[in-house]
Amino acid sequence: MSKKTIIVFSGDYDKLMAAFIIANGAAAMDDEVTMFFTFWGLAALRKPVGAVANSADKSGLQKAFSAMLPKHAEKLGLSRFNFAGAGRSMMKKVMKSENVMTVAELMETAREQGVKMIACTMSMDVLGIGKDELVDGIEYAGVATYLGEADESNVNLFI
Amino acid sequence: MSKKTIIVFSGDYDKLMAAFIIANGAAAMDDEVTMFFTFWGLAALRKPVGAVANSADKSGLQKAFSAMLPKHAEKLGLSRFNFAGAGRSMMKKVMKSENVMTVAELMETAREQGVKMIACTMSMDVLGIGKDELVDGIEYAGVATYLGEADESNVNLFI
Amino acid sequence: MSKKTIIVFSGDYDKLMAAFIIANGAAAMDDEVTMFFTFWGLAALRKPVGAVANSADKSGLQKAFSAMLPKHAEKLGLSRFNFAGAGRSMMKKVMKSENVMTVAELMETAREQGVKMIACTMSMDVLGIGKDELVDGIEYAGVATYLGEADESNVNLFI
Repeated sequence: MSKKTIIVFSGDYDKLMAAFIIANGAAAMDDEVTMFFTFWGLAALRKPVGAVANSADKSGLQKAFSAMLPKHAEKLGLSRFNFAGAGRSMMKKVMKSENVMTVAELMETAREQGVKMIACTMSMDVLGIGKDELVDGIEYAGVATYLGEADESNVNLFI
Repeated sequence: MSKKTIIVFSGDYDKLMAAFIIANGAAAMDDEVTMFFTFWGLAALRKPVGAVANSADKSGLQKAFSAMLPKHAEKLGLSRFNFAGAGRSMMKKVMKSENVMTVAELMETAREQGVKMIACTMSMDVLGIGKDELVDGIEYAGVATYLGEADESNVNLFI
Repeated sequence: MSKKTIIVFSGDYDKLMAAFIIANGAAAMDDEVTMFFTFWGLAALRKPVGAVANSADKSGLQKAFSAMLPKHAEKLGLSRFNFAGAGRSMMKKVMKSENVMTVAELMETAREQGVKMIACTMSMDVLGIGKDELVDGIEYAGVATYLGEADESNVNLFI
């Protein structure tokens, strides 16, 4: 048993798949796993649209950024061949026929396996994302916490 | 002597250069090196066009994905300034004049130095890539194998 | 006290922020930190426009590449939602109001904290960037030096 820490910087659907597949694989082998979500990766932690009241204390710029970022992991694009979502839809159809889990399913499995998910508070400030917009059961911290986790890990990745 | 494991997720020509240069550098220093090719990184392992018969058991969606992915490493684009391949061509011209190896040459050197190359079988399913489409001399495995290699490595990268 | 080594491959403003925030956080905790700038990441080390005479011994292709690469860290785009610089400007405004440092400020702090910055000489050749175009106080080296640093580090990232 060892520990793995993954920085999830990217908000691309395919990179999130990779991050969660590695995290779940390690957790299944009894490793302790921490995922630190920062910048666009925070999109993976967002509650579905409609579940959140618009927070009134955002600046105009924060609202703009926040509005551009997809509201839910399953709405994220691919890093390649996305074609305004058509690529992601295609990939999800193949995944279904090949019994590959979606990001939402992978995240649910990660939770069940006790993968620790941390939202980067500095990125939340820059992108104007409030705690009320993110899913429950996650932790909030900054770079010092990340570095503490990374120091204890034998595998560290930036995705 | 120690071990290095690199996940090659990206199919960008410049990122593949970086991955192989690190792998070859480590192998030259007698390190054991494993490269785990997943998602778009699989493009680096494809046989040249014409060398493969179209596999009949692909679904329409798998055919579409497979068709979009470049058929050979030297056809891949840059992550920046690609301009429909013009950027890559320019870079390759400069590389030649500066005696920098192409990705194809770097991969050949990696083979000669005994770098272990593994194709991610789950990504192959999602992208509809068959074993007959990939070069010879590689291994096939999933995330558990990757994690085993990573656990033994003192340097782990996601590229 | 331990050591961290970060490869900075990307020239995206947001990824550079992430790289320097991790580097500065580690340095603040008395870790030894090395940043190895390669390919587009070299843009972060460029002197401001006007500070450099055009070097006469570049080939036409090197000049073209060199001209495309932004001349200063604060001119770099975001990896997402850049909109020809508007996204970066927006993000910088929010950062200012939230007291988050710019990349130029983060780099200055990194220097003050003794973070070692190395420019990859092979990438400089490929992109046609001369030493006279990069800021002072950095080192120049290739992949063997990177691997030496990485071997001594307990956290290695590719950004």
